[in-house]
Amino acid sequence: MEKRLINIGILGFGTVGSGAVKVLWEQKEEIEKELGVELRIKKIVDQDWQRQRPVAVPPELKGKNLEEVLEDPELDILVEAIGGVEPAFSVVSRFLSRGKTVITPNKELIAKKGRELLDLASQAGGELFFEGSVGGGIPIIQTLKTQLLGDDISEVFGIVNGTTNFILTHMSLYQSSYAESLDKAQELGYAEPVPTMDVEGFDAAYKIAILASLSFHTRVDVESVYREGITRIIPQDIEFAQELGFVVKLLAIAKLIDNAVTLRVHPVFLPNNHPLSGVNGVENAIFVKSRFRELTFRGPGAGGEATGAALVGDIIEAVRNILFDSRGRVGCTCLRELEVQPIAQLETQYCIRVLALDVPGVLGKIATEFGDGGVSLSAVKQPVSTPGKLTNIYFLTHSVREELLQKALKRVNDLEVVSDTYTIRVEA
Amino acid sequence: MEKRLINIGILGFGTVGSGAVKVLWEQKEEIEKELGVELRIKKIVDQDWQRQRPVAVPPELKGKNLEEVLEDPELDILVEAIGGVEPAFSVVSRFLSRGKTVITPNKELIAKKGRELLDLASQAGGELFFEGSVGGGIPIIQTLKTQLLGDDISEVFGIVNGTTNFILTHMSLYQSSYAESLDKAQELGYAEPVPTMDVEGFDAAYKIAILASLSFHTRVDVESVYREGITRIIPQDIEFAQELGFVVKLLAIAKLIDNAVTLRVHPVFLPNNHPLSGVNGVENAIFVKSRFRELTFRGPGAGGEATGAALVGDIIEAVRNILFDSRGRVGCTCLRELEVQPIAQLETQYCIRVLALDVPGVLGKIATEFGDGGVSLSAVKQPVSTPGKLTNIYFLTHSVREELLQKALKRVNDLEVVSDTYTIRVEA
Repeated sequence: MEKRLINIGILGFGTVGSGAVKVLWEQKEEIEKELGVELRIKKIVDQDWQRQRPVAVPPELKGKNLEEVLEDPELDILVEAIGGVEPAFSVVSRFLSRGKTVITPNKELIAKKGRELLDLASQAGGELFFEGSVGGGIPIIQTLKTQLLGDDISEVFGIVNGTTNFILTHMSLYQSSYAESLDKAQELGYAEPVPTMDVEGFDAAYKIAILASLSFHTRVDVESVYREGITRIIPQDIEFAQELGFVVKLLAIAKLIDNAVTLRVHPVFLPNNHPLSGVNGVENAIFVKSRFRELTFRGPGAGGEATGAALVGDIIEAVRNILFDSRGRVGCTCLRELEVQPIAQLETQYCIRVLALDVPGVLGKIATEFGDGGVSLSAVKQPVSTPGKLTNIYFLTHSVREELLQKALKRVNDLEVVSDTYTIRVEA
Repeated sequence: MEKRLINIGILGFGTVGSGAVKVLWEQKEEIEKELGVELRIKKIVDQDWQRQRPVAVPPELKGKNLEEVLEDPELDILVEAIGGVEPAFSVVSRFLSRGKTVITPNKELIAKKGRELLDLASQAGGELFFEGSVGGGIPIIQTLKTQLLGDDISEVFGIVNGTTNFILTHMSLYQSSYAESLDKAQELGYAEPVPTMDVEGFDAAYKIAILASLSFHTRVDVESVYREGITRIIPQDIEFAQELGFVVKLLAIAKLIDNAVTLRVHPVFLPNNHPLSGVNGVENAIFVKSRFRELTFRGPGAGGEATGAALVGDIIEAVRNILFDSRGRVGCTCLRELEVQPIAQLETQYCIRVLALDVPGVLGKIATEFGDGGVSLSAVKQPVSTPGKLTNIYFLTHSVREELLQKALKRVNDLEVVSDTYTIRVEA
């Protein structure tokens, strides 16, 4: 019996695009046997064919023009790996609108345009997969859409950015500064020359928007994610955390509270017995809490082969749906429109670092402002310092509402002896 | 538009069966909205309706006779939660052979008869799901069949038995004996009155047979799983492990080595920086290593609601396939017939506890036998003991082939000063 031929086009041949091709070619025979089809990569389009690639591409497969995949009526599946919103959005839209399948790891595209694209796919009989958009090689997206769909998830949060996790891990291990650790990350290729998207939490914000949307079955506007990066963290913060039994991590957090969603990306103090606390370096992990179970998914958050394997996982799903004529069997699950809870309404514990003059009475003054502001303290640490010089004093508060804390902090900041304050939220 | 009605029958209303019903009823509205169907539990069959249940069942749903679900032509999905091979096998076979869908968490059934049932389902146009059979609430089965199908997995191993993990955790935390810790587990309902299936590793053997079959796309005979339980472990073993940077866990292990599979369940020394090392109490976790990524899946290994949620996850998949007429889109993935590597060919490090008389020269005699037997030692610990009395001496070997080790051990055992030996393999 002749096997059905599935034609695949690849758009973008950077780390992830070439990773997917490598995985697919290495595993071609096995996957074809499992699915009972023939898989053919028909065209790979990229603007720059001079770059070093992990896989050799026959000349006849190399294309330079978007139209070479877009205008080919034989293609069944398009892998979009160019990143960013445009031209990805236009290209993906056109392909979906012809009732075809698109696979993309493009987190920005999905976070900003996912709902629109899923609607389009549904209307046109096409299908959109985006497993690689969150957690690189960790299979979380499809799991949320299938096995966990009925779970009534109340919390989903994780370490979803490898760059920042590497930097924080490096700072913890070597008591090195943020700048030194960023240098190291750049040297190893874990951070971009301009690292803003990672270190300021934009990348993590896209990812938590996607996770929240799937977990809570709601539309999420990525602009509504509260976001703080890791650039202000100093080794002393991490040391204070460790003394209290915490690690410092950049978490992307989404929780359901009274029918509203809290959506935030910021550094946290995380108890060192939490399943995410041992996730170090560029590794990622996602924690899901539902009414019925608590799950942790841990693995490589990036890398061509790992993310490529996630794309190939999507190709497998896509092929099965083509074979069984069941495209769209897992569609958009976001039926709700939940409110986003303002960060001011958050209630948690806080670590506060106060840079203050070491003069008589300074601790009393600061503590009094906290107390007068309704912020109760759970732990205090004032390291040995030099009289008359600036020193960092650390406070851990009891649980308090963020707006109260911010008011009290303003009063602390207004003290003449106080030069600066910095806050890290506790996540338990 | 009228929604399609999906009729579900439940066979067995113990912990898992009632857990599934509870989850399904609590989440009915949301799941129905997501899937666009009406879900109805039409009949629940159990022999004993006197037991306490976490959910109230209307009298008209209660059945006592298998035939009440088997003979109902309206049922679309059968949830088999009676456990064991018979009558489960006959019932599931009959239902599948009518082209219907069966969902079961029955690990013994799947480990022993899974291939047969999957073939039957495929021939008859029925479908078989078994997410709950391994790792309770951890979504690993469907993930292996979908997202990881193309991954070329080389290792899958995990903590897949909560009872033994609870006992070992308890022994570690309180330096308590196996017997005391088992008592505690039984008191808390984590161990059966007759705990053999768990503590001797039978349960874990079923589960690793299933995981290996899916991971390596091969048939697995559950009888070929090498199996040792945890009953001989003493607190001193755990102490020795900790001193060397290990924890003691009962692992179920499957690895691909030179086109053969090693399949084994036994206690191990696991490095305490391994993702599985922090998995304590009744929690389970599964580690998967493929050519492209290393993943850890962690969560509740048992419990009515957690496993019930896994069954509901299967129901969601099943319903989608019914709606899209795509039953069988994920069929049996076990196309190979890999050899099983005999345990004698294993190569690893070993911890050896030698119970010997504290007499002059004893350590030299034992060490000489190891050396003469080709077993090289990496660490030795002889605690302070009483001259002339029996004492436990600990050895950690370098990596060595198991058959060599067993020969050397026989020579050690033959020494007059040696009363007993016990071996724990190192897993790295």
